[in-house]
Amino acid sequence: MKTSNRIPTRFLSAERAAELVAAKGFANCLAGMADYIRADFLRWNDFEKTARVANHSDDGVIELMPISDDSLYSFKYVNGHPKNHRFGLSTVMAFGVLADVDTGAPTLVSELTLTTALRTAATSALAARALARPDSKRMALIGNGAQSEFQALAFHHLLGVTEFHLFDVDAAATNKLMRNLERMGLSAKRFASTKEAVKGCDIVTTVTADKTNATILTPDMIEPGMHINGVGGDCPGKTELHADVLRMGRVFCEFEPQSRIEGDMQQMPADFEVTELWNVLAGKVPGRQAASEVTVFDSVGFALEDFSALRFMRDLAIELGVEEEISLIPDLADPKNLFGSVPASAAPRAAVRELQVA
Amino acid sequence: MKTSNRIPTRFLSAERAAELVAAKGFANCLAGMADYIRADFLRWNDFEKTARVANHSDDGVIELMPISDDSLYSFKYVNGHPKNHRFGLSTVMAFGVLADVDTGAPTLVSELTLTTALRTAATSALAARALARPDSKRMALIGNGAQSEFQALAFHHLLGVTEFHLFDVDAAATNKLMRNLERMGLSAKRFASTKEAVKGCDIVTTVTADKTNATILTPDMIEPGMHINGVGGDCPGKTELHADVLRMGRVFCEFEPQSRIEGDMQQMPADFEVTELWNVLAGKVPGRQAASEVTVFDSVGFALEDFSALRFMRDLAIELGVEEEISLIPDLADPKNLFGSVPASAAPRAAVRELQVA
Repeated sequence: MKTSNRIPTRFLSAERAAELVAAKGFANCLAGMADYIRADFLRWNDFEKTARVANHSDDGVIELMPISDDSLYSFKYVNGHPKNHRFGLSTVMAFGVLADVDTGAPTLVSELTLTTALRTAATSALAARALARPDSKRMALIGNGAQSEFQALAFHHLLGVTEFHLFDVDAAATNKLMRNLERMGLSAKRFASTKEAVKGCDIVTTVTADKTNATILTPDMIEPGMHINGVGGDCPGKTELHADVLRMGRVFCEFEPQSRIEGDMQQMPADFEVTELWNVLAGKVPGRQAASEVTVFDSVGFALEDFSALRFMRDLAIELGVEEEISLIPDLADPKNLFGSVPASAAPRAAVRELQVA
Repeated sequence: MKTSNRIPTRFLSAERAAELVAAKGFANCLAGMADYIRADFLRWNDFEKTARVANHSDDGVIELMPISDDSLYSFKYVNGHPKNHRFGLSTVMAFGVLADVDTGAPTLVSELTLTTALRTAATSALAARALARPDSKRMALIGNGAQSEFQALAFHHLLGVTEFHLFDVDAAATNKLMRNLERMGLSAKRFASTKEAVKGCDIVTTVTADKTNATILTPDMIEPGMHINGVGGDCPGKTELHADVLRMGRVFCEFEPQSRIEGDMQQMPADFEVTELWNVLAGKVPGRQAASEVTVFDSVGFALEDFSALRFMRDLAIELGVEEEISLIPDLADPKNLFGSVPASAAPRAAVRELQVA
């Protein structure tokens, strides 16, 4: 009989993930993650896809996002609590797991707060490479919270965007984004309103946090040839784009059944035309067709992107020699003898306290 | 500005959980967990209940089981891979999380393989206290795998069962159970078939692992007054009881919408009568009504039991001073500055490698 059947579950803490990203560099991480996401999107039909499971409360939502192919399973735990910043907490916090489909053994537990920001930005850039004008240089960033730097970096490194127009209702958030972009050597300019910020931009990224049906972008702000990267309209009752903005051009999404419920598209009738991004990446449907066309990526975040991001972070940890593990699963010499995993000292103590079960 | 908004996520490893159970004793853990489960079942309508989300593959299933009330959220990750023992792995492996509904912050990550075995047995005993004859002394244990010792201990300590009749198609599993029960000072006898094992028993517990539509118990084996604790028929295509056994007495379950899909009840028509256990615990529906009545608890395992079990293990860790933590969530001085959590050394390395995004 074997004496150990240890399941090694790799662990990537929040600090360790940040160190890995620092060591690899933002540009490499964003590019690598975009590669992984693209590779998985091209295998779209290999995946068992489920709409995410949400537990809603007054102030937010907690969601589980599972997905699997024939060999690998992943899920993400993620919350969305727009008022969290009042308590000094992040609006979005996340972690996730990779597991082996053949045995069900969890092989990785990882932070996904930082990783989600990277994967969301990488997905936005991946979509924009197919949908924005190739000569895009100027992007408006409406919403200057936790995700905004990652959007800027992804569009700079993966698309060549060099100029950022910023607006947020919270001036302190814009201050923070300005400082961070300057630190990275990127050019940014602040504006007093969304309308002023988007004027003359090639790409408009909306990444606001309020859980309301907002109209951050209205039709009068949209210019011919603009690509709209709508990131913050991502759950029921949380939208950013005026419905008429969606009618101004072709609309693309990640996973249609989920986006119709969670995306800005939730405002539109069930037969409103939308194209899943993977079709464009796979060359089945054209992306942008004319310089004057308006394109909209109605992004909500899909489990497959987390699957890819977890794969990327796992491989990065291996590449950089990070080998931390946690013991989630009992190590049983005989898998039918779970009882035997409890130290024997339990036996004599079993009857110590008088039992009180009603 | 505060310099830290650390989210302390308590961590309970497989080893640590086993040590806690050993220190507290099986009897106290089973009794305590039964108390917690009972208390939560009595608040049935306080919970947002969801059927579990399953990703099925050829050899097994991976499930997520979320549930929440106004203040606390939990989910369990659990697999079911009946062939795992061939690779030296457990059929069922699990872990879970408690989180704060107000903020979405995860407050506990815990092993749930051992804990699930305890909570399943505690739930079985809780049901049997209301459904089995109060003078029950003899229980058949059909299926002598990883869960069987816990069932025996729960029925011994919480119901006063003193004699166990064992049968398993795997003689080695029965050997193991015999040894473990002897170590605990419990009286057990092995039989050559299910039919012989159940003869003369007050309670019959079926806890087999095969993912098939089996008929472990047939009507000819059922005696007046028996309580059947059906534990192993717990997912689509996996049953243990002949349909006519379900017609011989009153049937009780945990969460009806889930049990109709996953329980032995999956064999029955949609209008087959079943009572949710919480109604009995709350005194809304009588439990056993006559010494000759046959009762069936068609158990599949419900997210609320894991919610209770996680609460119990968290409180036990606090009581016994176990304070291990993991860092799942970034510690941000400014929650809108996630970017700032990445060490600054990233900046100069950002452009080192030439980018290759297709």
